[in-house]
Amino acid sequence: MAWLSIDRASKTPLIRQIYRQLRTKILHGELPAGYRLPSTRHLAEALEVSRNVVLEAYNQLLAEGFVEGRQGSGTFVAEGACLQQTEVVSAFLPEEQVGEKQDDVIDFRTGIPALELFPRKQWGQLAKRVSTETNHTLFGYDLPEGRIELRTALAEYLLRTRGVQCRPEQIVITSGATQAFTLIGKLLISPNQQVLIEDPITHEIQTIFRACGASLFPIAVDDQGMQTSGLPERAKPAFIFVTPSHQFPLGGTLPIQRRIHLVEYARKTGVYLVEDDYDSEFRYEGPPLSSLQGLAPDRTIYIGTFSKILSPALRLGYVILPPPLIGRFRELKYLSDLHAPSLEQLTLALFIKEGYLEKHVFRMKKVYRKRRDVLKAELYKQFGNEVKIHGDSTGLHVVAEFAGIQFTDRALATISEHGVKVYPVEWHTINKGRYHHHILIGFGNTDEAKIKEGISRLRRACREIR
Amino acid sequence: MAWLSIDRASKTPLIRQIYRQLRTKILHGELPAGYRLPSTRHLAEALEVSRNVVLEAYNQLLAEGFVEGRQGSGTFVAEGACLQQTEVVSAFLPEEQVGEKQDDVIDFRTGIPALELFPRKQWGQLAKRVSTETNHTLFGYDLPEGRIELRTALAEYLLRTRGVQCRPEQIVITSGATQAFTLIGKLLISPNQQVLIEDPITHEIQTIFRACGASLFPIAVDDQGMQTSGLPERAKPAFIFVTPSHQFPLGGTLPIQRRIHLVEYARKTGVYLVEDDYDSEFRYEGPPLSSLQGLAPDRTIYIGTFSKILSPALRLGYVILPPPLIGRFRELKYLSDLHAPSLEQLTLALFIKEGYLEKHVFRMKKVYRKRRDVLKAELYKQFGNEVKIHGDSTGLHVVAEFAGIQFTDRALATISEHGVKVYPVEWHTINKGRYHHHILIGFGNTDEAKIKEGISRLRRACREIR
Repeated sequence: MAWLSIDRASKTPLIRQIYRQLRTKILHGELPAGYRLPSTRHLAEALEVSRNVVLEAYNQLLAEGFVEGRQGSGTFVAEGACLQQTEVVSAFLPEEQVGEKQDDVIDFRTGIPALELFPRKQWGQLAKRVSTETNHTLFGYDLPEGRIELRTALAEYLLRTRGVQCRPEQIVITSGATQAFTLIGKLLISPNQQVLIEDPITHEIQTIFRACGASLFPIAVDDQGMQTSGLPERAKPAFIFVTPSHQFPLGGTLPIQRRIHLVEYARKTGVYLVEDDYDSEFRYEGPPLSSLQGLAPDRTIYIGTFSKILSPALRLGYVILPPPLIGRFRELKYLSDLHAPSLEQLTLALFIKEGYLEKHVFRMKKVYRKRRDVLKAELYKQFGNEVKIHGDSTGLHVVAEFAGIQFTDRALATISEHGVKVYPVEWHTINKGRYHHHILIGFGNTDEAKIKEGISRLRRACREIR
Repeated sequence: MAWLSIDRASKTPLIRQIYRQLRTKILHGELPAGYRLPSTRHLAEALEVSRNVVLEAYNQLLAEGFVEGRQGSGTFVAEGACLQQTEVVSAFLPEEQVGEKQDDVIDFRTGIPALELFPRKQWGQLAKRVSTETNHTLFGYDLPEGRIELRTALAEYLLRTRGVQCRPEQIVITSGATQAFTLIGKLLISPNQQVLIEDPITHEIQTIFRACGASLFPIAVDDQGMQTSGLPERAKPAFIFVTPSHQFPLGGTLPIQRRIHLVEYARKTGVYLVEDDYDSEFRYEGPPLSSLQGLAPDRTIYIGTFSKILSPALRLGYVILPPPLIGRFRELKYLSDLHAPSLEQLTLALFIKEGYLEKHVFRMKKVYRKRRDVLKAELYKQFGNEVKIHGDSTGLHVVAEFAGIQFTDRALATISEHGVKVYPVEWHTINKGRYHHHILIGFGNTDEAKIKEGISRLRRACREIR
């Protein structure tokens, strides 16, 4: 039995140690089929362990089929329990693509809320309350559309703040807006069908709809959002995708005339409007705008998210569907991942119901308005007439246009070398080449001191570029 | 101005009241294009509100394009702001399909853990700690594969308890096992390609793979799991799907000979094995079985879930991938929903790291073993020789075979009328007709008293059926 060893200092139980060594030797063919294992009594004596330990190890091997017991004559290695070894590839993983740590970089990434101001205390308390106080059925499987508590709170909140007309039954809670895009793509896109879509529009959304088999029909955008005059005459698209409250990336707000044009077009062609309303709660001029959905609830699929008003880490978004689409959409959600996490949904429902969400949005609006104002002032201070600012009435980013600068890859690399990151509008275009002078500057997660420092770095970088 | 009214008792702010009424009248065409609105001063006097209130309401209408200001001459309704009304469909939702409330029904549904024993206190405390104490970067966007804290804790836990060989880099956290199935389907299935799969096997999994375009090639199952002798000679399937630790639904454990056969077959044909390991932590005879993944980490995609050992409401599962598949799988996860919720991931990581998970599994194993024993005893007591029990060594359900009873839809309806729910194995078959005498009885979420009552109800129902 020299070939078996026991390590009494190891955390691995003795049974497991014996089992593993025998298993390996059988798998590797060192103990061939038909080989008779020592009796449990003998092995126990040799290893100085209790006989039960060996018995348990043998039982385990027996249960997995490595050995077989023959009445009265002992335990034998079974046929067919030897596996030819392939080479062990130890360092088989691709090198981790970890960039150098650049803690000092000021990142004007868009769509990130102020992470340091997440209402962690209230959220933590509510999460604990949900976990400890809710009826235990909460911990079971749930409905694909999500918790009724959250859908009810949401319907009330959206009517009050966004003019959205819906009943809780029309809402499906999704894993962020991203899953909403994916499921809507699955729901409505047939292979090679067109999607009419603003151009430019979030790059990832293009990728998702294309992955569903769509070809994208770009509709140009100006400072007032989608130019609806560009809607094609005789089209039968899968749907029309639009960000009417705050066009991404250019920042315009769609005026009522274009909204009506869209609704009439949708009615005439019998297609749905998909309204992505990602950050319009943060409107700095006047009260919040009404949703497109409120104009034509029967023709609009409305997508919302808590990523900008609360935190993207929650992965909670939602879709509001016209009744004929509800059943199939629920089914698609079910087949994707059954439903959204219940505890988090309930925590959010309480967060809304107890008024924390509206307070948080109110507070954050002031913070973001301040950041926006500082950003604008700093841009004008540093660049004067060389910069034009667009789309600053709403949301967590502005578009800055520099007539004298082309934001080529090389220019962006230079900017990055100066310890500041900005994002080209061209990244989000379908028809390329019209926005080389435009960059996106997100200010949600950048405080005022960093904004000032970031823009002076940008200034220095831009001097080098020209 | 008789056509505008103010309700001072309403919770809606005055600005919003005025704005909404004007907006509706313009939308409906009651105030036509070119119509001159009263001056802010006059309207304010008429309504007895401050002039600022009216100014704000007008500004809002201006921002949305409903009205336009003409220098020195007032505010006019804009062109194109009138939308033809469609009929208002008030009760447009399909009748809710709410069954009669049957609180008294004893439901032997499979795969539900004991919900009343979820460790709510520890979970709630950890959730609160995560929310209040973690660095604020936690609240931002995260990696598609999930938090490194969870993947590290998981890799250690799986090596210790399941013999799974992996590095944290190979793990992707998913929204339950369901999303893992969906993403593996997307990753590996080309249209009309075959998937070799156990028959019977979970109904939903069949639906998901078919939705990805696969045709299912059924491999029959016996009391020891997949009959690997049935693997086709010259096939090039997308992958082979198998539940080796605890076949669902029949409950067998795949012996080493068949595992080796599978691995050799996979190597020869160059396809991957997909191992679904959903509840094998609850093994009542001997220590837990090793995973198939541990035999051939380079050929196996391993799927795990926290739905059975903790709670399905968390929607947390994971996939362990051979290195060549990692990059593309991460991308698919990203395009589906970016990543799993971060707070919940971190709570689970702490729950594992601080030893709560292993304690919980240990505790639950005793509970479930007891429930299983009571269920078996009660079945034998009520049905004697008429019942055979299969697949009871592991997991949260058994298969009961009644030679004298066919579980037709009508029979199941009769059983249901007696206030007890059981689940036919036939529901999960691909080739139909072989399991009419078999039902699944889940005992995870049914306490001992209910198990006894449920089985005597089943007894009474079965008397009626024959």
